[in-house]
Amino acid sequence: MSLKNDLIIRAARGEEIERYPVWLMRQAGRILPEYRAVRASLSGFKELVETPELAAEVTIQPVDLLGVDAAIIFSDILVVPEAMGLTYEMVEKKGPFFPKTIKSEEDLVKHAQVDFDIEDRLGYVTEAIRITNKELAGRVPLIGFAGAPWTIFCYMIEGQGSKTFAKARKVLYTNPALAHDLLQRITDVTIRYLKAQVLAGAHMLQVFDSWAGILGQVQYEEFGLKYIDQIARAIDEVPITIFAKGAFRAVESIAKMPCNTIGLDWNMSVREMRKLVGESRTLQGNLDPCALYSSHNEVERLTKSMLNSFESKRHIVNLGHGVYPDINPDKVRTFIETVKNYEL
Amino acid sequence: MSLKNDLIIRAARGEEIERYPVWLMRQAGRILPEYRAVRASLSGFKELVETPELAAEVTIQPVDLLGVDAAIIFSDILVVPEAMGLTYEMVEKKGPFFPKTIKSEEDLVKHAQVDFDIEDRLGYVTEAIRITNKELAGRVPLIGFAGAPWTIFCYMIEGQGSKTFAKARKVLYTNPALAHDLLQRITDVTIRYLKAQVLAGAHMLQVFDSWAGILGQVQYEEFGLKYIDQIARAIDEVPITIFAKGAFRAVESIAKMPCNTIGLDWNMSVREMRKLVGESRTLQGNLDPCALYSSHNEVERLTKSMLNSFESKRHIVNLGHGVYPDINPDKVRTFIETVKNYEL
Repeated sequence: MSLKNDLIIRAARGEEIERYPVWLMRQAGRILPEYRAVRASLSGFKELVETPELAAEVTIQPVDLLGVDAAIIFSDILVVPEAMGLTYEMVEKKGPFFPKTIKSEEDLVKHAQVDFDIEDRLGYVTEAIRITNKELAGRVPLIGFAGAPWTIFCYMIEGQGSKTFAKARKVLYTNPALAHDLLQRITDVTIRYLKAQVLAGAHMLQVFDSWAGILGQVQYEEFGLKYIDQIARAIDEVPITIFAKGAFRAVESIAKMPCNTIGLDWNMSVREMRKLVGESRTLQGNLDPCALYSSHNEVERLTKSMLNSFESKRHIVNLGHGVYPDINPDKVRTFIETVKNYEL
Repeated sequence: MSLKNDLIIRAARGEEIERYPVWLMRQAGRILPEYRAVRASLSGFKELVETPELAAEVTIQPVDLLGVDAAIIFSDILVVPEAMGLTYEMVEKKGPFFPKTIKSEEDLVKHAQVDFDIEDRLGYVTEAIRITNKELAGRVPLIGFAGAPWTIFCYMIEGQGSKTFAKARKVLYTNPALAHDLLQRITDVTIRYLKAQVLAGAHMLQVFDSWAGILGQVQYEEFGLKYIDQIARAIDEVPITIFAKGAFRAVESIAKMPCNTIGLDWNMSVREMRKLVGESRTLQGNLDPCALYSSHNEVERLTKSMLNSFESKRHIVNLGHGVYPDINPDKVRTFIETVKNYEL
């Protein structure tokens, strides 16, 4: 199936583009009443993730309703630890919770499994990708994704969100061998998982390192970037984006990986990052998600101001973080329209 | 009362020191069984904060039990919004909660009061300072503190901790005038509060901007640093330390303020920060609090490695964040002893 709109692929590869492509992290989600309607009919978040027809439906909603230049498969980064043997619950208003966590080498055998068939345990994701592409019929590319090993590690050790992830960071000091063993397992599974998504039809991939920012540079090189680099090296089928949130100083290292695009959070200065990265990579981001709480005029002004700060065509426009659930979708439309109407 | 150990004051002022001074953020707290014993006899955290004799007792504990070079008054940054008219509760295992928050200009009159007598509403803090100094009898200096206006603002708008503080950041876009009004009120009260602490006997002051890292550089200049600068300018009685956690790129701006010491979090590279700051300011920090989970040998090694990275005598040794409550106090002693035995 050939793509009718391949703008984002060309932008990722550094090819000629007629305008900047635009999409939003968490565009398939609670901002849309149509998403909330689907979600309300179900027992919970996980049922939606695990039902391919419905996951495909909400994946396509922002393409129809917002006019984004790419779809991103509706799923969760925590499907990977679950497939490895650590079940999670999504607790309403609190976030993910793992009743069991990794505490020792013995736990790895049962709860950090590596040798399993991806289609067998994560077939609901690849199936959702197949259905989505069939229904999209090439209108826009479909992005697949996974969490970065460090972020998945944090959840597998900590069992839930945390301000400091002190338990996860503790292991880096008390048992670095266990940390590396677990990180390598996550990496191996993640590579196979991402390749399965490509095989199912994902046109691009993104790796999310949500907790990159809680490590200092030296530890992030050893326990974070090292494994992301393995992933970037293993994927050559489609363009790949690395988004290490909060890891301002890692951007230079990421720019040395064989990736196409580097995600920027809203606290990073585009100009500064462009200086560090040079022209060899595409940058993605990075409007402050809170900017969409402003008036329409102000959203337009802030979006234009960001676009004016781009000194290169190698950009994919996005927010610097997932869109917040209480944002008015009309503000998102203003953001998207402003990007689409911006003359290069 | 003259000080028998004024090492930290001299280090803050850039005067000659014979060894690096050392203390820990949150040293008066749950790491010490002696603290937990006092705490267990009370109805809650706030009772301890509001009972000067007991606050003084736990303030002195780490001086006796750990051998730190400074005491820091046991209190909470949220006593300021409470004095301004916003009561908070400290919910066990969850953190602070404000039943009422600031939503509009009208709320400011009642819940962001400025014209009140500090001794009248915050006398329990100044009284705790007086008692502590009497009991310390000059053994070590006593540090007073307050939250930075931006961090206090976050709590007054958001009402509780948050991963994104999206409500607080939203106001910066939707009602910047309200934001500035509230920030100025907090600043005015904070200056008077810090001066009252000095009058009561605080030998040094520290301003904690815990949520500095959630703003981009431009917004942090406007809504954060601008008000910290007012505080730094208003305090000339004693040395003052500014600790803007996570605000890596703000350090250069802070170095231009009339402050003595800049706090570094554990993700900041001491060498890099020294380059930015030059020799005109003292740096405080910044061992990763998780390093204290290591073995004694490893704590010693990591502490020495940090000390070896200092290229100047203008340092006060601390962790890069508050000590975590489940750290073994013996590891803290190893940390402190390593610093004390380190030859300059």
